[in-house]
Amino acid sequence: MTVTITAFKWVPEFARGFVRDLRPRWACEEIGLAYEERLIGQEEQASASYRAEQPWGQVPVLQDDGVHLFESGAILMHLGEKDERLLPADLEARAHTISWLFAAFNSIEPWVFELGTIMLFAEGEEWAELRKPSLLETLDERLDGLADALGDKDYLVGDFTVADIAMSSALRELERTTLLSERPILAAYVERCTAREGFKKAMADQLAAFDRHEPATTN
Amino acid sequence: MTVTITAFKWVPEFARGFVRDLRPRWACEEIGLAYEERLIGQEEQASASYRAEQPWGQVPVLQDDGVHLFESGAILMHLGEKDERLLPADLEARAHTISWLFAAFNSIEPWVFELGTIMLFAEGEEWAELRKPSLLETLDERLDGLADALGDKDYLVGDFTVADIAMSSALRELERTTLLSERPILAAYVERCTAREGFKKAMADQLAAFDRHEPATTN
Repeated sequence: MTVTITAFKWVPEFARGFVRDLRPRWACEEIGLAYEERLIGQEEQASASYRAEQPWGQVPVLQDDGVHLFESGAILMHLGEKDERLLPADLEARAHTISWLFAAFNSIEPWVFELGTIMLFAEGEEWAELRKPSLLETLDERLDGLADALGDKDYLVGDFTVADIAMSSALRELERTTLLSERPILAAYVERCTAREGFKKAMADQLAAFDRHEPATTN
Repeated sequence: MTVTITAFKWVPEFARGFVRDLRPRWACEEIGLAYEERLIGQEEQASASYRAEQPWGQVPVLQDDGVHLFESGAILMHLGEKDERLLPADLEARAHTISWLFAAFNSIEPWVFELGTIMLFAEGEEWAELRKPSLLETLDERLDGLADALGDKDYLVGDFTVADIAMSSALRELERTTLLSERPILAAYVERCTAREGFKKAMADQLAAFDRHEPATTN
């Protein structure tokens, strides 16, 4: 059976390269696991049948031999179980990998996401300007803790794992800010992760789908 | 070897009953797994040695036979692996449980948390009042999708699982709002989960620790 990853046919410019199917695509590339793309449009996204697969009509959904998963974190966990290169078998390393996987999704990304909301959808709005200082204070503390934990290590837990896919994907969204360049450890970490062949291939494949489905009216 | 859960010695009133060690305590109660409490104060929380266990000095940390985990989601995963009552062995049910576990931490809690920040720490501040409408719009959509998915089921995936611990814990923080009572499915779900003996025992044990460590100066 083939693994199938659901992604969007097309998204606006600002979202390209950041839609979350990038994460399972990347994981598949790292272990050489072939997958099929299932590209959905707005109509299918809003349909009851798709909502039964993904409660909010988002992507990715992963289908694997009759098993369905949603949430990119859950999908990374599932793909990790297939190959020790993504999720180490050693008990302590596995525990740390899963800890960092959840940390990416619950201790880092929510604040990155809140900042993204401000920068992408509320730039210049009064509430956004007023909220920024306290949000940046929280984000500074989170990023400093992460940088301290990373120290001079290349990856979060020994070799590259699904935790690095999740964490570097969350941090990448800060590339439009100075928060990474202010912390050379994190800037180098994101660069190291995204320099991997697996990331580059996954990114190219996500973007290629959008190019193929560019609406004629926007040309 | 005994499982050890790290929790705070004492927290201010508003946080009691909501500190995240409640989640692994609850999971342990559900499967009758005895655990030891390791209670830490502010000094230990800020120490370099504790930061090496938990990058942001938070709780819980779980120690289990030499294995350390942080992040309550990772700890729920780990405890789930011990017992099918928390994480089903059936592949499809397991995949759904892990999907909902991540959904609680990444698709529901971040918005609940942002609303909590507004209500607890920024009530009446200008940015908070201005931000509320768009935040509530997002939260409405998330909660409606969750209620649709839950439908007339008692729990997210067949019987009670770690996903229900995570999801009901995230939703409980909305009890100070009308967002649950506006959705009877969700209100009943939270009530069903928190009526369980395991929840009640976990809650009593968290609160008991705070009572034992009440600073003399506040009396």
